[in-house]
Amino acid sequence: MIDLETVRIVLVEPSHPGNIGASARAMKTMGLSQLYLVSPRFYPHAEASARASGADDVLAKAVLCRDLDEALSGVTLVLGTSARARNLEWPTMTPRQAAGAIDSEPQSQIAFIFGRERSGLTNAELERCHYRVHIPSNPEYSSLNLAAAVQLICYELSIRSSHALSDTDYPESIDHARHEHEAYADQVDVERFFVHLEQALEDIDFLNPDNPRQLMRRLKRLFNRTRLFHTEVNLLRGILTAAQRQARLARDR
Amino acid sequence: MIDLETVRIVLVEPSHPGNIGASARAMKTMGLSQLYLVSPRFYPHAEASARASGADDVLAKAVLCRDLDEALSGVTLVLGTSARARNLEWPTMTPRQAAGAIDSEPQSQIAFIFGRERSGLTNAELERCHYRVHIPSNPEYSSLNLAAAVQLICYELSIRSSHALSDTDYPESIDHARHEHEAYADQVDVERFFVHLEQALEDIDFLNPDNPRQLMRRLKRLFNRTRLFHTEVNLLRGILTAAQRQARLARDR
Repeated sequence: MIDLETVRIVLVEPSHPGNIGASARAMKTMGLSQLYLVSPRFYPHAEASARASGADDVLAKAVLCRDLDEALSGVTLVLGTSARARNLEWPTMTPRQAAGAIDSEPQSQIAFIFGRERSGLTNAELERCHYRVHIPSNPEYSSLNLAAAVQLICYELSIRSSHALSDTDYPESIDHARHEHEAYADQVDVERFFVHLEQALEDIDFLNPDNPRQLMRRLKRLFNRTRLFHTEVNLLRGILTAAQRQARLARDR
Repeated sequence: MIDLETVRIVLVEPSHPGNIGASARAMKTMGLSQLYLVSPRFYPHAEASARASGADDVLAKAVLCRDLDEALSGVTLVLGTSARARNLEWPTMTPRQAAGAIDSEPQSQIAFIFGRERSGLTNAELERCHYRVHIPSNPEYSSLNLAAAVQLICYELSIRSSHALSDTDYPESIDHARHEHEAYADQVDVERFFVHLEQALEDIDFLNPDNPRQLMRRLKRLFNRTRLFHTEVNLLRGILTAAQRQARLARDR
Protein backbone atom coordinates (compact mmCIF):
# COMPACT_ATOMS: atom_id res chain seq x y z
CA MET A 1 0.00 0.00 0.00
CA ILE A 2 1.33 3.41 -0.90
CA ASP A 3 1.48 5.89 1.95
CA LEU A 4 0.37 9.04 0.17
CA GLU A 5 1.97 11.17 2.86
CA THR A 6 5.40 10.14 1.54
CA VAL A 7 4.72 11.43 -1.98
CA ARG A 8 5.68 14.94 -3.01
CA ILE A 9 4.22 16.65 -6.05
CA VAL A 10 6.87 19.06 -7.31
CA LEU A 11 5.89 21.74 -9.84
CA VAL A 12 8.90 23.29 -11.56
CA GLU A 13 8.43 26.93 -12.55
CA PRO A 14 4.70 26.86 -13.19
CA SER A 15 3.63 29.95 -15.15
CA HIS A 16 -0.08 29.98 -14.44
CA PRO A 17 -1.17 30.37 -10.83
CA GLY A 18 -4.48 28.73 -11.75
CA ASN A 19 -2.60 25.52 -12.43
CA ILE A 20 -1.06 25.61 -8.97
CA GLY A 21 -4.47 25.85 -7.36
CA ALA A 22 -5.95 23.21 -9.63
CA SER A 23 -3.02 20.89 -8.84
CA ALA A 24 -3.63 21.34 -5.10
CA ARG A 25 -7.25 20.42 -5.63
CA ALA A 26 -6.34 17.44 -7.81
CA MET A 27 -3.98 16.23 -5.09
CA LYS A 28 -6.44 16.58 -2.27
CA THR A 29 -9.22 14.74 -4.11
CA MET A 30 -6.84 11.80 -4.32
CA GLY A 31 -5.57 12.07 -0.75
CA LEU A 32 -2.18 13.71 -1.37
CA SER A 33 -1.02 16.84 0.40
CA GLN A 34 2.73 17.42 -0.10
CA LEU A 35 2.99 20.19 -2.70
CA TYR A 36 6.38 21.72 -3.57
CA LEU A 37 6.70 24.74 -5.82
CA VAL A 38 10.02 25.52 -7.48
CA SER A 39 10.22 29.19 -8.48
CA PRO A 40 6.59 29.67 -9.51
CA ARG A 41 6.12 32.71 -11.70
CA PHE A 42 3.27 34.10 -9.60
CA TYR A 43 2.69 32.89 -6.09
CA PRO A 44 0.74 33.41 -3.94
CA HIS A 45 -2.00 34.53 -6.30
CA ALA A 46 -5.75 34.96 -6.14
CA GLU A 47 -6.22 32.66 -9.14
CA ALA A 48 -4.35 29.86 -7.37
CA SER A 49 -6.59 30.19 -4.34
CA ALA A 50 -9.73 30.31 -6.47
CA ARG A 51 -8.89 27.16 -8.40
CA ALA A 52 -7.79 25.31 -5.26
CA SER A 53 -11.39 25.47 -4.11
CA GLY A 54 -11.63 23.39 -0.90
CA ALA A 55 -7.97 22.39 -1.13
CA ASP A 56 -6.77 25.69 0.30
CA ASP A 57 -5.09 23.79 3.13
CA VAL A 58 -2.83 21.98 0.65
CA LEU A 59 -2.01 25.30 -0.97
CA ALA A 60 -1.36 26.98 2.38
CA LYS A 61 1.24 24.44 3.39
CA ALA A 62 2.88 24.20 -0.04
CA VAL A 63 6.66 24.43 0.24
CA LEU A 64 8.16 27.23 -1.83
CA CYS A 65 11.64 26.29 -3.12
CA ARG A 66 14.34 28.26 -4.90
CA ASP A 67 15.54 25.30 -6.90
CA LEU A 68 14.92 21.63 -7.55
CA ASP A 69 17.63 20.61 -5.08
CA GLU A 70 15.66 22.14 -2.29
CA ALA A 71 12.49 20.37 -3.37
CA LEU A 72 14.25 17.00 -3.56
CA SER A 73 15.99 17.23 -0.22
CA GLY A 74 15.33 14.02 1.69
CA VAL A 75 13.85 12.28 -1.34
CA THR A 76 15.09 8.82 -2.35
CA LEU A 77 13.06 8.14 -5.48
CA VAL A 78 12.47 10.73 -8.19
CA LEU A 79 10.05 10.34 -11.09
CA GLY A 80 9.79 12.93 -13.83
CA THR A 81 6.75 13.32 -16.01
CA SER A 82 7.44 14.01 -19.64
CA ALA A 83 5.46 14.16 -22.85
CA ARG A 84 8.42 14.67 -25.12
CA ALA A 85 10.58 12.09 -26.79
CA ARG A 86 14.25 12.33 -25.91
CA ASN A 87 17.34 11.54 -27.83
CA LEU A 88 18.92 9.45 -25.16
CA GLU A 89 16.24 7.15 -23.94
CA TRP A 90 15.44 7.04 -20.28
CA PRO A 91 13.77 4.27 -18.32
CA THR A 92 10.10 4.99 -18.90
CA MET A 93 6.96 3.84 -17.16
CA THR A 94 3.28 4.57 -17.41
CA PRO A 95 1.62 6.19 -14.38
CA ARG A 96 0.11 2.81 -13.56
CA GLN A 97 3.42 1.06 -13.68
CA ALA A 98 4.95 3.80 -11.57
CA ALA A 99 2.26 3.37 -8.93
CA GLY A 100 2.86 -0.36 -8.96
CA ALA A 101 6.58 0.12 -8.58
CA ILE A 102 6.14 2.51 -5.67
CA ASP A 103 3.70 0.14 -4.07
CA SER A 104 6.40 -2.50 -3.89
CA GLU A 105 9.06 -0.09 -2.63
CA PRO A 106 10.27 -0.17 0.91
CA GLN A 107 9.58 2.98 2.90
CA SER A 108 10.95 5.99 1.12
CA GLN A 109 10.28 9.60 0.25
CA ILE A 110 9.10 9.92 -3.32
CA ALA A 111 8.89 12.92 -5.62
CA PHE A 112 6.99 13.31 -8.86
CA ILE A 113 8.27 16.31 -10.73
CA PHE A 114 6.22 18.17 -13.33
CA GLY A 115 7.79 20.60 -15.77
CA ARG A 116 6.79 23.97 -17.12
CA GLU A 117 3.51 24.32 -18.98
CA ARG A 118 5.17 25.07 -22.30
CA SER A 119 8.52 23.40 -22.21
CA GLY A 120 8.29 20.65 -19.60
CA LEU A 121 11.43 19.53 -17.79
CA THR A 122 14.91 20.34 -19.03
CA ASN A 123 17.30 17.54 -19.80
CA ALA A 124 19.27 18.42 -16.67
CA GLU A 125 16.12 18.09 -14.58
CA LEU A 126 15.21 14.85 -16.23
CA GLU A 127 18.64 13.53 -15.38
CA ARG A 128 17.75 13.92 -11.72
CA CYS A 129 15.01 11.35 -12.19
CA HIS A 130 15.30 7.63 -11.70
CA TYR A 131 12.40 7.13 -14.03
CA ARG A 132 10.52 9.03 -16.59
CA VAL A 133 6.75 8.70 -16.41
CA HIS A 134 4.92 9.11 -19.66
CA ILE A 135 1.15 9.50 -19.58
CA PRO A 136 -0.21 7.59 -22.56
CA SER A 137 -1.92 10.16 -24.75
CA ASN A 138 -3.08 11.06 -28.21
CA PRO A 139 0.06 11.07 -30.36
CA GLU A 140 -1.38 13.97 -32.34
CA TYR A 141 -2.19 16.09 -29.30
CA SER A 142 -0.44 15.11 -26.12
CA SER A 143 -0.67 18.54 -24.52
CA LEU A 144 -2.14 17.69 -21.15
CA ASN A 145 -2.87 20.58 -18.87
CA LEU A 146 -0.44 20.62 -15.91
CA ALA A 147 -3.11 20.05 -13.27
CA ALA A 148 -4.68 17.32 -15.42
CA ALA A 149 -1.34 15.49 -15.45
CA VAL A 150 -1.12 15.89 -11.67
CA GLN A 151 -4.66 14.54 -11.41
CA LEU A 152 -3.85 11.40 -13.39
CA ILE A 153 -0.68 10.64 -11.46
CA CYS A 154 -2.39 11.18 -8.11
CA TYR A 155 -5.30 9.03 -9.24
CA GLU A 156 -3.04 6.09 -10.00
CA LEU A 157 -1.21 6.52 -6.71
CA SER A 158 -4.44 6.80 -4.81
CA ILE A 159 -5.75 3.55 -6.22
CA ARG A 160 -2.72 1.87 -4.72
CA SER A 161 -3.12 3.53 -1.35
CA SER A 162 -4.94 2.35 1.69
CA HIS A 163 -7.88 4.71 1.51
CA ALA A 164 -9.02 3.87 -2.00
CA LEU A 165 -11.83 1.56 -2.95
CA SER A 166 -10.55 -1.83 -3.88
CA ASP A 167 -10.75 -2.81 -7.49
CA THR A 168 -9.99 -6.29 -8.65
CA ASP A 169 -9.06 -5.01 -12.08
CA TYR A 170 -5.67 -3.70 -11.03
CA PRO A 171 -2.69 -5.15 -12.76
CA GLU A 172 -0.10 -7.10 -10.89
CA SER A 173 2.55 -5.02 -9.28
CA ILE A 174 5.85 -4.74 -10.99
CA ASP A 175 8.52 -6.91 -9.54
CA HIS A 176 11.08 -4.83 -7.84
CA ALA A 177 14.16 -6.07 -6.12
CA ARG A 178 13.93 -5.10 -2.53
CA HIS A 179 16.89 -4.22 -0.42
CA GLU A 180 15.21 -3.90 2.87
CA HIS A 181 18.19 -3.55 5.12
CA GLU A 182 19.83 -0.69 3.30
CA ALA A 183 18.80 2.90 2.97
CA TYR A 184 18.69 4.54 -0.41
CA ALA A 185 20.83 7.62 -0.81
CA ASP A 186 19.33 11.03 -0.32
CA GLN A 187 19.06 12.82 -3.65
CA VAL A 188 21.14 15.69 -2.35
CA ASP A 189 24.00 13.28 -1.68
CA VAL A 190 23.60 11.70 -5.10
CA GLU A 191 23.80 15.13 -6.67
CA ARG A 192 27.00 15.86 -4.72
CA PHE A 193 28.39 12.58 -5.94
CA PHE A 194 27.70 13.59 -9.55
CA VAL A 195 29.47 16.92 -9.01
CA HIS A 196 32.39 15.07 -7.46
CA LEU A 197 32.40 12.55 -10.31
CA GLU A 198 32.54 15.26 -12.95
CA GLN A 199 35.39 17.02 -11.18
CA ALA A 200 37.33 13.79 -10.75
CA LEU A 201 36.92 12.90 -14.44
CA GLU A 202 38.35 16.29 -15.31
CA ASP A 203 41.22 15.82 -12.85
CA ILE A 204 42.25 12.50 -14.38
CA ASP A 205 42.00 14.01 -17.88
CA PHE A 206 39.16 11.78 -18.92
CA LEU A 207 36.59 14.49 -19.34
CA ASN A 208 37.41 17.58 -21.34
CA PRO A 209 35.16 20.41 -20.12
CA ASP A 210 35.42 22.03 -23.54
CA ASN A 211 34.11 18.89 -25.17
CA PRO A 212 32.09 17.00 -22.56
CA ARG A 213 30.18 14.97 -25.14
CA GLN A 214 27.39 13.09 -23.35
CA LEU A 215 29.65 11.68 -20.70
CA MET A 216 27.96 12.92 -17.55
CA ARG A 217 24.56 12.28 -18.96
CA ARG A 218 25.41 8.68 -19.66
CA LEU A 219 26.96 8.18 -16.25
CA LYS A 220 24.02 9.76 -14.50
CA ARG A 221 21.71 7.54 -16.40
CA LEU A 222 23.72 4.52 -15.33
CA PHE A 223 23.86 5.43 -11.65
CA ASN A 224 20.29 6.64 -11.46
CA ARG A 225 19.12 3.42 -12.97
CA THR A 226 20.68 1.43 -10.21
CA ARG A 227 19.37 3.60 -7.37
CA LEU A 228 22.36 3.99 -5.17
CA PHE A 229 22.40 3.14 -1.51
CA HIS A 230 23.76 5.61 0.97
CA THR A 231 26.79 3.42 1.67
CA GLU A 232 27.51 3.05 -2.03
CA VAL A 233 27.63 6.78 -2.58
CA ASN A 234 30.26 7.00 0.15
CA LEU A 235 32.21 4.12 -1.37
CA LEU A 236 32.19 5.65 -4.86
CA ARG A 237 33.23 9.04 -3.53
CA GLY A 238 36.11 7.36 -1.72
CA ILE A 239 37.26 5.92 -5.04
CA LEU A 240 37.00 9.32 -6.71
CA THR A 241 39.07 10.92 -3.97
CA ALA A 242 41.75 8.25 -4.36
CA ALA A 243 41.90 8.83 -8.12
CA GLN A 244 42.09 12.58 -7.63
CA ARG A 245 44.98 12.14 -5.22
CA GLN A 246 46.92 10.21 -7.88
CA ALA A 247 46.21 12.94 -10.42
CA ARG A 248 47.46 15.58 -7.97
CA LEU A 249 50.63 13.62 -7.28
CA ALA A 250 51.17 13.21 -11.04
CA ARG A 251 50.68 16.92 -11.61
CA ASP A 252 52.93 17.97 -8.74
CA ARG A 253 55.92 15.96 -9.75
CA MET B 1 -10.54 -2.28 -28.29
CA ILE B 2 -12.69 0.74 -27.58
CA ASP B 3 -13.42 2.91 -30.60
CA LEU B 4 -13.15 6.36 -29.04
CA GLU B 5 -15.23 7.84 -31.85
CA THR B 6 -18.26 6.06 -30.43
CA VAL B 7 -17.96 7.67 -27.00
CA ARG B 8 -19.78 10.90 -26.18
CA ILE B 9 -18.84 13.09 -23.27
CA VAL B 10 -22.02 14.83 -22.13
CA LEU B 11 -21.77 17.81 -19.78
CA VAL B 12 -25.09 18.65 -18.14
CA GLU B 13 -25.60 22.35 -17.38
CA PRO B 14 -21.97 23.28 -16.79
CA SER B 15 -21.75 26.68 -15.03
CA HIS B 16 -18.16 27.61 -15.80
CA PRO B 17 -17.18 28.01 -19.44
CA GLY B 18 -13.57 27.35 -18.45
CA ASN B 19 -14.58 23.81 -17.54
CA ILE B 20 -16.07 23.27 -20.98
CA GLY B 21 -12.82 24.28 -22.64
CA ALA B 22 -10.72 22.24 -20.22
CA SER B 23 -12.96 19.22 -20.83
CA ALA B 24 -12.46 19.57 -24.58
CA ARG B 25 -8.71 19.64 -24.03
CA ALA B 26 -8.85 16.65 -21.67
CA MET B 27 -10.80 14.70 -24.27
CA LYS B 28 -8.49 15.50 -27.14
CA THR B 29 -5.35 14.55 -25.22
CA MET B 30 -6.90 11.12 -24.80
CA GLY B 31 -8.16 10.83 -28.35
CA LEU B 32 -11.88 11.59 -27.81
CA SER B 33 -13.77 14.20 -29.76
CA GLN B 34 -17.55 13.86 -29.27
CA LEU B 35 -18.53 16.61 -26.85
CA TYR B 36 -22.20 17.27 -26.04
CA LEU B 37 -23.29 20.25 -23.99
CA VAL B 38 -26.71 20.26 -22.34
CA SER B 39 -27.85 23.80 -21.58
CA PRO B 40 -24.50 25.28 -20.62
CA ARG B 41 -24.85 28.50 -18.65
CA PHE B 42 -22.42 30.42 -20.86
CA TYR B 43 -21.54 29.19 -24.31
CA PRO B 44 -19.74 30.02 -26.48
CA HIS B 45 -17.39 31.96 -24.25
CA ALA B 46 -13.85 33.31 -24.46
CA GLU B 47 -12.86 31.41 -21.31
CA ALA B 48 -13.94 28.12 -22.90
CA SER B 49 -11.82 28.82 -25.96
CA ALA B 50 -8.84 29.86 -23.87
CA ARG B 51 -8.87 26.73 -21.73
CA ALA B 52 -9.44 24.47 -24.73
CA SER B 53 -5.96 25.45 -25.92
CA GLY B 54 -5.19 23.32 -28.99
CA ALA B 55 -8.48 21.43 -28.68
CA ASP B 56 -10.48 24.22 -30.28
CA ASP B 57 -11.59 21.78 -32.98
CA VAL B 58 -13.34 19.61 -30.38
CA LEU B 59 -14.99 22.71 -28.96
CA ALA B 60 -16.02 23.96 -32.42
CA LYS B 61 -17.88 20.78 -33.24
CA ALA B 62 -19.44 20.35 -29.78
CA VAL B 63 -23.15 19.58 -30.03
CA LEU B 64 -25.31 22.02 -28.13
CA CYS B 65 -28.44 20.32 -26.73
CA ARG B 66 -31.55 21.64 -25.04
CA ASP B 67 -31.95 18.60 -22.83
CA LEU B 68 -30.44 15.26 -21.94
CA ASP B 69 -32.78 13.41 -24.29
CA GLU B 70 -31.28 15.21 -27.22
CA ALA B 71 -27.74 14.42 -26.08
CA LEU B 72 -28.58 10.74 -25.65
CA SER B 73 -30.25 10.33 -29.02
CA GLY B 74 -28.79 7.25 -30.73
CA VAL B 75 -26.94 6.14 -27.61
CA THR B 76 -27.21 2.55 -26.44
CA LEU B 77 -25.18 2.60 -23.25
CA VAL B 78 -25.29 5.42 -20.71
CA LEU B 79 -22.91 5.83 -17.80
CA GLY B 80 -23.34 8.57 -15.23
CA THR B 81 -20.51 9.88 -13.12
CA SER B 82 -21.28 10.65 -9.55
CA ALA B 83 -19.34 11.50 -6.44
CA ARG B 84 -22.28 11.44 -4.10
CA ALA B 85 -23.67 8.50 -2.24
CA ARG B 86 -27.27 7.79 -3.10
CA ASN B 87 -30.07 6.38 -1.06
CA LEU B 88 -31.15 4.02 -3.74
CA GLU B 89 -28.13 2.04 -4.75
CA TRP B 90 -27.27 1.88 -8.39
CA PRO B 91 -24.99 -0.51 -10.21
CA THR B 92 -21.65 1.20 -9.66
CA MET B 93 -18.31 0.78 -11.34
CA THR B 94 -14.92 2.43 -11.14
CA PRO B 95 -13.71 4.20 -14.29
CA ARG B 96 -11.38 1.29 -14.93
CA GLN B 97 -14.14 -1.24 -14.63
CA ALA B 98 -16.33 0.87 -16.88
CA ALA B 99 -13.62 0.97 -19.54
CA GLY B 100 -13.28 -2.78 -19.27
CA ALA B 101 -17.04 -3.24 -19.61
CA ILE B 102 -17.18 -1.00 -22.68
CA ASP B 103 -14.22 -2.82 -24.16
CA SER B 104 -16.22 -6.03 -24.10
CA GLU B 105 -19.38 -4.40 -25.49
CA PRO B 106 -20.47 -5.04 -29.02
CA GLN B 107 -20.50 -1.97 -31.27
CA SER B 108 -22.58 0.71 -29.69
CA GLN B 109 -22.85 4.40 -29.09
CA ILE B 110 -21.83 5.20 -25.54
CA ALA B 111 -22.37 8.29 -23.42
CA PHE B 112 -20.67 9.34 -20.22
CA ILE B 113 -22.70 12.02 -18.53
CA PHE B 114 -21.22 14.50 -16.10
CA GLY B 115 -23.37 16.60 -13.78
CA ARG B 116 -23.29 20.19 -12.66
CA GLU B 117 -20.22 21.51 -10.85
CA ARG B 118 -22.05 22.02 -7.58
CA SER B 119 -24.84 19.53 -7.51
CA GLY B 120 -23.90 16.78 -9.93
CA LEU B 121 -26.65 14.77 -11.63
CA THR B 122 -30.21 14.74 -10.40
CA ASN B 123 -31.80 11.46 -9.43
CA ALA B 124 -33.92 11.63 -12.58
CA GLU B 125 -30.79 12.00 -14.71
CA LEU B 126 -29.05 9.19 -12.88
CA GLU B 127 -32.01 6.96 -13.61
CA ARG B 128 -31.28 7.38 -17.29
CA CYS B 129 -27.94 5.65 -16.73
CA HIS B 130 -27.29 1.97 -17.06
CA TYR B 131 -24.39 2.32 -14.69
CA ARG B 132 -23.09 4.79 -12.24
CA VAL B 133 -19.36 5.43 -12.41
CA HIS B 134 -17.70 6.50 -9.21
CA ILE B 135 -14.17 7.85 -9.35
CA PRO B 136 -12.34 6.55 -6.27
CA SER B 137 -11.40 9.61 -4.26
CA ASN B 138 -10.55 11.00 -0.87
CA PRO B 139 -13.60 10.34 1.29
CA GLU B 140 -12.95 13.62 3.07
CA TYR B 141 -12.71 15.67 -0.11
CA SER B 142 -14.13 14.07 -3.21
CA SER B 143 -14.79 17.34 -5.02
CA LEU B 144 -13.11 16.70 -8.36
CA ASN B 145 -13.12 19.52 -10.82
CA LEU B 146 -15.46 18.75 -13.74
CA ALA B 147 -12.70 18.72 -16.36
CA ALA B 148 -10.52 16.62 -14.05
CA ALA B 149 -13.26 14.00 -13.87
CA VAL B 150 -13.57 14.09 -17.67
CA GLN B 151 -9.79 13.67 -17.87
CA LEU B 152 -9.78 10.56 -15.68
CA ILE B 153 -12.64 8.88 -17.52
CA CYS B 154 -11.11 9.62 -20.92
CA TYR B 155 -7.75 8.37 -19.68
CA GLU B 156 -9.19 4.99 -18.71
CA LEU B 157 -11.05 4.74 -22.01
CA SER B 158 -7.98 5.70 -23.95
CA ILE B 159 -5.89 2.98 -22.36
CA ARG B 160 -8.40 0.48 -23.71
CA SER B 161 -8.46 2.02 -27.16
CA SER B 162 -6.50 1.20 -30.24
CA HIS B 163 -4.59 4.41 -30.64
CA ALA B 164 -2.97 4.82 -27.26
CA LEU B 165 0.14 3.26 -25.98
CA SER B 166 -1.29 1.10 -23.28
CA ASP B 167 0.55 -0.51 -20.42
CA THR B 168 1.04 -3.62 -22.45
CA ASP B 169 3.10 -1.67 -24.95
CA TYR B 170 5.55 -0.93 -22.22
CA PRO B 171 7.95 -3.47 -20.90
CA GLU B 172 6.65 -5.79 -18.23
CA SER B 173 8.90 -4.76 -15.40
CA ILE B 174 11.13 -1.95 -14.33
CA ASP B 175 14.11 -4.13 -14.99
CA HIS B 176 13.14 -4.06 -18.61
CA ALA B 177 11.81 -0.52 -18.70
CA ARG B 178 14.98 0.47 -20.34
CA HIS B 179 16.65 1.31 -23.53
CA GLU B 180 15.54 -1.08 -26.11
CA HIS B 181 17.96 0.08 -28.69
CA GLU B 182 20.93 -0.65 -26.51
CA ALA B 183 22.52 -4.01 -26.04
CA TYR B 184 23.32 -5.36 -22.61
CA ALA B 185 26.93 -6.19 -22.03
CA ASP B 186 28.10 -9.69 -22.50
CA GLN B 187 28.78 -11.26 -19.11
CA VAL B 188 32.32 -12.08 -20.21
CA ASP B 189 32.95 -8.37 -20.77
CA VAL B 190 31.40 -7.52 -17.41
CA GLU B 191 33.71 -10.00 -15.75
CA ARG B 192 36.71 -8.41 -17.51
CA PHE B 193 35.50 -5.04 -16.29
CA PHE B 194 35.48 -6.31 -12.70
CA VAL B 195 39.05 -7.61 -13.07
CA HIS B 196 40.04 -4.24 -14.50
CA LEU B 197 38.21 -2.41 -11.71
CA GLU B 198 39.99 -4.40 -9.02
CA GLN B 199 43.39 -3.76 -10.59
CA ALA B 200 42.67 -0.04 -10.99
CA LEU B 201 41.56 0.26 -7.35
CA GLU B 202 44.85 -1.30 -6.32
CA ASP B 203 46.77 1.02 -8.62
CA ILE B 204 45.22 4.14 -7.14
CA ASP B 205 45.86 2.80 -3.62
CA PHE B 206 42.21 2.48 -2.77
CA LEU B 207 42.13 -1.24 -2.44
CA ASN B 208 44.73 -3.02 -0.35
CA PRO B 209 45.05 -6.61 -1.63
CA ASP B 210 46.14 -7.69 1.83
CA ASN B 211 42.99 -6.30 3.33
CA PRO B 212 40.38 -6.17 0.58
CA ARG B 213 37.47 -5.98 2.99
CA GLN B 214 34.26 -6.44 1.02
CA LEU B 215 35.06 -3.82 -1.55
CA MET B 216 34.80 -5.79 -4.74
CA ARG B 217 31.78 -7.61 -3.53
CA ARG B 218 29.96 -4.38 -2.85
CA LEU B 219 30.94 -2.91 -6.20
CA LYS B 220 29.92 -6.02 -8.09
CA ARG B 221 26.59 -5.94 -6.36
CA LEU B 222 26.12 -2.33 -7.41
CA PHE B 223 27.03 -2.84 -11.05
CA ASN B 224 25.26 -6.15 -11.40
CA ARG B 225 22.11 -4.61 -10.04
CA THR B 226 22.03 -2.09 -12.84
CA ARG B 227 22.71 -4.51 -15.69
CA LEU B 228 25.33 -2.68 -17.66
CA PHE B 229 25.04 -1.93 -21.33
CA HIS B 230 27.86 -2.81 -23.65
CA THR B 231 28.66 0.87 -24.24
CA GLU B 232 28.69 1.55 -20.50
CA VAL B 233 31.26 -1.15 -19.83
CA ASN B 234 33.52 0.50 -22.40
CA LEU B 235 32.93 3.90 -20.84
CA LEU B 236 33.74 2.67 -17.34
CA ARG B 237 36.86 0.89 -18.53
CA GLY B 238 37.96 4.11 -20.20
CA ILE B 239 37.66 5.88 -16.86
CA LEU B 240 39.65 3.14 -15.12
CA THR B 241 42.40 3.40 -17.72
CA ALA B 242 42.58 7.18 -17.25
CA ALA B 243 42.86 6.78 -13.47
CA GLN B 244 45.57 4.13 -13.86
CA ARG B 245 47.54 6.44 -16.11
CA GLN B 246 47.54 9.13 -13.41
CA ALA B 247 48.71 6.57 -10.87
CA ARG B 248 51.52 5.51 -13.16
CA LEU B 249 52.57 9.11 -13.72
CA ALA B 250 52.52 9.68 -9.96
CA ARG B 251 54.59 6.57 -9.33
CA ASP B 252 57.13 7.39 -12.02
CA ARG B 253 57.95 10.83 -10.78
